[in-house]
Amino acid sequence: MDATSKSSFSRPQFESLLKRRFFFTESFEIYRTAPNFQGDNRGLYDYGPPGCALQANIVGEWRSHFVIEENIMELDCTAITPADVLKTSGHVDKFADYMCRDPAKGEFLRADHLVKGVLETRLEGHAKAVAGQAKFTKLDSTVAQEFESILAQLDNYGGPELGELIEMYDIRNPNGNGKVLPPVPFNLMFQSTIGPSAAAPIYLRPETAQGQFLNFQKLLEFRRGAMPFASACIGKSYRNEISPRSGLLRVREFLMAEIEHFVDPDTSKSHERFSEVADVQLPLLDRDTQLSGRTDVRLLSIGEAVHGEIKTGKSPVDNETLGYFLVRIYLYLLKIGADPARVRFRQHLDNEMAHYASDCWDAELLTSYGWIECVGCADRSAYDLTVHAKHTGSPLNVEVTRTVPVEVDAWQADLEKKVLGPRFKKDAKKIEAAVAALDQVTLANLADELARKAIITVPTEPLATGESSVELSADICSIQKVKRIEHTRKYTPNVIEPSFGIGRILYSVLEHVYWHRPDDVARGVLSLPILVAPTKVLIAPLSNNATLQPITKKLAARLRRLRIANDVDSSSTSIGKRYARNDELGTPLGVTVDFDTVQNGSLTLRERDSMAQVRASEDEIIQAICSLVEGRET
Amino acid sequence: MDATSKSSFSRPQFESLLKRRFFFTESFEIYRTAPNFQGDNRGLYDYGPPGCALQANIVGEWRSHFVIEENIMELDCTAITPADVLKTSGHVDKFADYMCRDPAKGEFLRADHLVKGVLETRLEGHAKAVAGQAKFTKLDSTVAQEFESILAQLDNYGGPELGELIEMYDIRNPNGNGKVLPPVPFNLMFQSTIGPSAAAPIYLRPETAQGQFLNFQKLLEFRRGAMPFASACIGKSYRNEISPRSGLLRVREFLMAEIEHFVDPDTSKSHERFSEVADVQLPLLDRDTQLSGRTDVRLLSIGEAVHGEIKTGKSPVDNETLGYFLVRIYLYLLKIGADPARVRFRQHLDNEMAHYASDCWDAELLTSYGWIECVGCADRSAYDLTVHAKHTGSPLNVEVTRTVPVEVDAWQADLEKKVLGPRFKKDAKKIEAAVAALDQVTLANLADELARKAIITVPTEPLATGESSVELSADICSIQKVKRIEHTRKYTPNVIEPSFGIGRILYSVLEHVYWHRPDDVARGVLSLPILVAPTKVLIAPLSNNATLQPITKKLAARLRRLRIANDVDSSSTSIGKRYARNDELGTPLGVTVDFDTVQNGSLTLRERDSMAQVRASEDEIIQAICSLVEGRET
Repeated sequence: MDATSKSSFSRPQFESLLKRRFFFTESFEIYRTAPNFQGDNRGLYDYGPPGCALQANIVGEWRSHFVIEENIMELDCTAITPADVLKTSGHVDKFADYMCRDPAKGEFLRADHLVKGVLETRLEGHAKAVAGQAKFTKLDSTVAQEFESILAQLDNYGGPELGELIEMYDIRNPNGNGKVLPPVPFNLMFQSTIGPSAAAPIYLRPETAQGQFLNFQKLLEFRRGAMPFASACIGKSYRNEISPRSGLLRVREFLMAEIEHFVDPDTSKSHERFSEVADVQLPLLDRDTQLSGRTDVRLLSIGEAVHGEIKTGKSPVDNETLGYFLVRIYLYLLKIGADPARVRFRQHLDNEMAHYASDCWDAELLTSYGWIECVGCADRSAYDLTVHAKHTGSPLNVEVTRTVPVEVDAWQADLEKKVLGPRFKKDAKKIEAAVAALDQVTLANLADELARKAIITVPTEPLATGESSVELSADICSIQKVKRIEHTRKYTPNVIEPSFGIGRILYSVLEHVYWHRPDDVARGVLSLPILVAPTKVLIAPLSNNATLQPITKKLAARLRRLRIANDVDSSSTSIGKRYARNDELGTPLGVTVDFDTVQNGSLTLRERDSMAQVRASEDEIIQAICSLVEGRET
Repeated sequence: MDATSKSSFSRPQFESLLKRRFFFTESFEIYRTAPNFQGDNRGLYDYGPPGCALQANIVGEWRSHFVIEENIMELDCTAITPADVLKTSGHVDKFADYMCRDPAKGEFLRADHLVKGVLETRLEGHAKAVAGQAKFTKLDSTVAQEFESILAQLDNYGGPELGELIEMYDIRNPNGNGKVLPPVPFNLMFQSTIGPSAAAPIYLRPETAQGQFLNFQKLLEFRRGAMPFASACIGKSYRNEISPRSGLLRVREFLMAEIEHFVDPDTSKSHERFSEVADVQLPLLDRDTQLSGRTDVRLLSIGEAVHGEIKTGKSPVDNETLGYFLVRIYLYLLKIGADPARVRFRQHLDNEMAHYASDCWDAELLTSYGWIECVGCADRSAYDLTVHAKHTGSPLNVEVTRTVPVEVDAWQADLEKKVLGPRFKKDAKKIEAAVAALDQVTLANLADELARKAIITVPTEPLATGESSVELSADICSIQKVKRIEHTRKYTPNVIEPSFGIGRILYSVLEHVYWHRPDDVARGVLSLPILVAPTKVLIAPLSNNATLQPITKKLAARLRRLRIANDVDSSSTSIGKRYARNDELGTPLGVTVDFDTVQNGSLTLRERDSMAQVRASEDEIIQAICSLVEGRET
């Protein structure tokens, strides 16, 4: 199935297959219908045996493709996170979605989803009315254009703007048509407390990144001071989505795999291995194209995308490091089964980015739900390391010896300690620390202020006075420009962050590899690459005749010893039905044990997609299976 | 190092190695010392690159050894769990530890740890006093005996008994010697809410098991109805420990790997593959031995342990299924590096077991903290499936066709629907459901009561009246014994649960494989099996001469393509220091690139434990590395 023949895809049929074969299921499903259930299990999913094996294989290949191939340092950090950490990172204040309450129904609706859903419905109605269907409403043509334009850049609207749209276009809850209250921000983090005293607030992490940032200094030391380097973390993250729908695509607990690539901002433009990938062509949709109202993808080599297009001279991708990762992400997605015709890289619009990002490209996969963000590749600049270092007073930076020392002009603040101690007593140390932490730009401004007013205000940690700042007069504080010889250079690295939503990738790939035999829509097939297929080999004795059992068992044990996941199906259903079941499970190979096997030891090997069969000796068949599983043959 | 030479083990030296090589670290360490930090990060640890790789390899081998070898169905269930589920499972009411508050210090102490610590300190003081050290206190000899006896069965005491001990022996907070308040239960689950309305309470799971139980019916269907079968889940669980200490051994967020093996209670005594392991000898410490005050381990073949000891006829291990798993656990632990002299299987005492368990054997590893429970192997009987099925009204059981139908006497309750409907209106359906759910024993009792009093009380879901039970008089309800032909047999399976604490295993194994070169205590070595070693091969160019770089790079790339984790150390430190660093990281193999390599392509391969070196061609060296990594050679 290619991107243009989407109409042949039936989501109900597809979902029925996934449910029937237990790829995943709603968590706590039997509680949903239990008497007096007060819970909310929406957005929570369990993976069944094939889903779980597929996920493990996708993660395993991620480790090979990124951690081993790029020599990344993997960490495993906790999901429980002290509130202070996420306050500093900005998540407590800014990691929120806007929601509207419908007082009549007592329902909470995510504001952007509400606007999107209602405007799309009106446009669909309009299209049907234009096509002559009487019971639909035609829109004024300027209104229809407005709606199109709003939808094209919906991610660019904040809460107040969404509120204005809701007011202006009288957007109501589709369930009951009730008016909704104006959008209010809802923080998406799950909150709890740790320890018996209940005094210590925590959140469940909404991303794995913060744990990696806080370990920066230890990672640098582990890498013996060598830059650039990358860390990675694979683990569950948690977002208390307002009203999750769309199955695995919007869930409240999900597996992420995140890389934090730390670079010297002075040399971040280049990447050591960029030349290896410069010719790879990527399907790109940049910011300018979107702002001009278009969504068409251009195929461009990453070399041109970074170093300037031959035609226009434009460089939509900022630097080699970002470009290198986009290619590596692309190759990974194709390897695990994504359809190249349904992959694109879309650059974020300005208002769409997370609070910490200065640029972001998403790898999006086309599904029956539209284009889905599966991998975000953000430039977080030095934001996180800077805020944590500032808050904790612990360094999160790199210090390198200069080959040639340099003389620099620098602002320097000095405190008159003889006055400071007696005047501020216990607070004196905090004030010293606050002054020492001032950066060059702030010092320059304060020097100016001090010269003009003979008094300055410096922010501090909370003092005995209850204040979080202190006034320092010229008798206690002086600021002047001094010459300094710097033998070392200190810098806070920039961070490029490729962040993978494993569940979204898994679901989208399943849509991409799903098709059905031409003769029968009910005979679904999942053409998963053998690399990630949950089970590699089905072993099927032709009948349940006792003579076939020992051979079957021996064969299964032999494959297990080779660590090749296999499944024996000795049930009495026809061999065709057993193969059909395994086509739905995505099992690429089938081995049949029959009466010839008893006679001469030969086996039949069947390939899932072509249904081609070959007959050979057990050793030859095992040899072929190993070659296929290890990717030496196709 | 064997169990008897523990004195040569220096924990500070060992911990310094783990910290220096970033196996793991306190999470959010830089926040711990940040100004005004209000959090509590105790019991939270991040794994650094070698710890994380070791963990991934331990988990990978777990998947091979259990999931693939035993054909177990792996699930991935959510950690977020609706409160209703854990109320039903008994965790909300019973999953608690007892704690004492010291009002003077504002500290919370775990009651059993308090008693243990204080009594052990007094006994140590006693021993020193007996040995003639003047500043220690001698105890009365009966008191010393009492203390010994209390400590031997401490796990057998509940909260009130611990309170009595604290009172009787005037046990106080060692920090400040303040009196503590009586023990109160503290539930160990982290609590939060889900969804925007804050109305839906959730807990973070304290074990992965519940998600597996709730999926029982889907698993049975996936296995096409065939029993017995097992499921497994690998994932993080959460316990809000009162006052965690002992590093990785008592943490608040931890990785578990749990198997739930479901068996027909009528045939659970036997296991299909038991004969394969019957002769394996296990170090056992059974309940009777412990209750007689001894802790000596006996080596016993699992065949004897299950089917009766030749000498005594006793069978300390209840059945083949349990015995089979004990052996498989034992083999797994040895494979990943546990020292057989420091492994034992200890049976739980009656009061020590979790509320759901009817028998339990722990695999314990001996560490510098004493014997540590690393794997629990509990018989949960049909407890969990029964309570969830009863609460939800959804079946969690197996129905098999009888080969020969049987006639059975059964109690049957009939309701007079013509009276029921008008009298109870909306509640009628709930009453019908409640009566239909009554089991045979209850029905027999109610039949008797109905005959005597002409009225019975039946528990129900909450009714419109606000009551959770209803009175049914003889005019509306009759109960009699009827003969029934049963063509099928319905049963709720028993569950055997091997439950692995991955962090505890990882830490204990690290202690087991740690030693130092005879000549130098500072030269630590971690003799991790190659199977689980974080990095398999160190590649070390002899010097940073430019001619060695391309060969080094090519070699690293070749190993990466074979998916063999390797690390290049081109630093200018001596080759000896680079090997010493990798001995501490547990890297089993080292390849040196030198000027002979430039000349003739030969490389040197070094083995970590013996420090033996061989020289051969690149192809031969790669061949040897592959054989070793795949376990074909040692």
